[in-house]
Amino acid sequence: MPILNKDMTLCISLSGRPSNLGTRFHNYLYDELGLNFIYKAFGTDDIEGAIRGVRALGIRGCSVSMPFKEAVIPLVDELEESAAAIESVNTIVNDNGHLTASNTDYEAVAELLRRHAVDPSSSVLVRGSGGMAKAVVAAFRGAGFDDLTVLARNATAGPALAEKYGYAWTDHDPAPGAAVIVNVTPLGMNGPDSDALSFGPEAIEATEVVFDVVAFPAETPLVRAGRDAGKQLVTGAEVVALQAARQFERYTGVALTPEQVARASEFSRAE
Amino acid sequence: MPILNKDMTLCISLSGRPSNLGTRFHNYLYDELGLNFIYKAFGTDDIEGAIRGVRALGIRGCSVSMPFKEAVIPLVDELEESAAAIESVNTIVNDNGHLTASNTDYEAVAELLRRHAVDPSSSVLVRGSGGMAKAVVAAFRGAGFDDLTVLARNATAGPALAEKYGYAWTDHDPAPGAAVIVNVTPLGMNGPDSDALSFGPEAIEATEVVFDVVAFPAETPLVRAGRDAGKQLVTGAEVVALQAARQFERYTGVALTPEQVARASEFSRAE
Repeated sequence: MPILNKDMTLCISLSGRPSNLGTRFHNYLYDELGLNFIYKAFGTDDIEGAIRGVRALGIRGCSVSMPFKEAVIPLVDELEESAAAIESVNTIVNDNGHLTASNTDYEAVAELLRRHAVDPSSSVLVRGSGGMAKAVVAAFRGAGFDDLTVLARNATAGPALAEKYGYAWTDHDPAPGAAVIVNVTPLGMNGPDSDALSFGPEAIEATEVVFDVVAFPAETPLVRAGRDAGKQLVTGAEVVALQAARQFERYTGVALTPEQVARASEFSRAE
Repeated sequence: MPILNKDMTLCISLSGRPSNLGTRFHNYLYDELGLNFIYKAFGTDDIEGAIRGVRALGIRGCSVSMPFKEAVIPLVDELEESAAAIESVNTIVNDNGHLTASNTDYEAVAELLRRHAVDPSSSVLVRGSGGMAKAVVAAFRGAGFDDLTVLARNATAGPALAEKYGYAWTDHDPAPGAAVIVNVTPLGMNGPDSDALSFGPEAIEATEVVFDVVAFPAETPLVRAGRDAGKQLVTGAEVVALQAARQFERYTGVALTPEQVARASEFSRAE
């Protein structure tokens, strides 16, 4: 037991159904770095009251998850470009009552495209049209990709997302051949769809880069198939760790090394 | 470092200038009892927003200190008798969004009068007319004391307090002779008045019971003088520990032994 004290800085997450991931990730690094911070996930059904509380209690940082990523926009004082571009917030920083919102999912995807040196002239196929798909598609646009198709059954959200960023939409699997395939649906995620392979074997065989945004499990059927086929991989585990790291840095002002992020990520997943 | 987790129940305190006492008292016992709780003190200047946050975040318990003890009354759903009787709240319990307010200062003083078997037929002299004096005077009234004088310079608060509970008021030290003398002013408290003796030597000599509500230091000049004169003592350290214990029990549902309260009290003061 640490000696909790009144001067500890509190950071939280707000979501409809909290997970333990952020709580473990952030507290692990507070401990390793000796920071006088604590972090705890909260569920709420009153996002306006929760943000009032963030202000009144001086809560320093606030991760925002489903279903509040858009609802918090009118409740903050300032939107950074990462949140404004996709009208979706996953991070709020409280500087003495001034709330600045950003989107570290967007930043993490953009950074991973750079780190993995994915060629912006590649053809890209993105499956999904939900909130996270918006962050992913916007990050591809921001990274200079011109040839991207949004693959989504939803005939409202699909074309709307594609059109917003000047891309194509289709509601059925195109002929294999996209150089980058990206899954942003729950297919392959722990739960009822955990066995589902989000792209067919031919699409995987024909591609160069396999990118799965699903973070749990770390090894989805798509990631496994991509690895078996010798493809370049970008994983949801990387996205989740990197977006949490960018939140951590905003809240604490401390820059993290890749090794620190890796250790915290491993700890956060090992429960 | 404990493994903080999303399911931990949060209890807090709200005040203008938080101290570390509650944070240490409650967390010590959470640890000793293996409860999945954490406690942290918060300062705020927006009590309404803070209580909105208590509701929205599902914060289980909330200690309320100066200057919010009266301001929270319209913000809760129910007042227990201990808070209603003195129109002052120091404790809020959140049962799934239903906020019940009580006053464990009042309860602690009432319980200490019983524990120390102070005779209700005694004459009592109470120095002070602030918020805590209200809890003390009401507790004497509730315990059946009829002969009590409020000694206070403040010619508004003093007579108002005395009148509310059917007691006498005076603005100057009466002739020594009260069987119970009670200090509820900052005289003798850590700070500018730490050397001040809140009652004169003759009043101490003439009394049977010396009761100092000042909690820091544990040994005030009045407590020391009472001990040296062989008087029965009731101390502010006892009041603070007991009122915190009653909060703890409300928040957690766990009854504390006197030994547990004593250990937590000692830990909370040893910083």
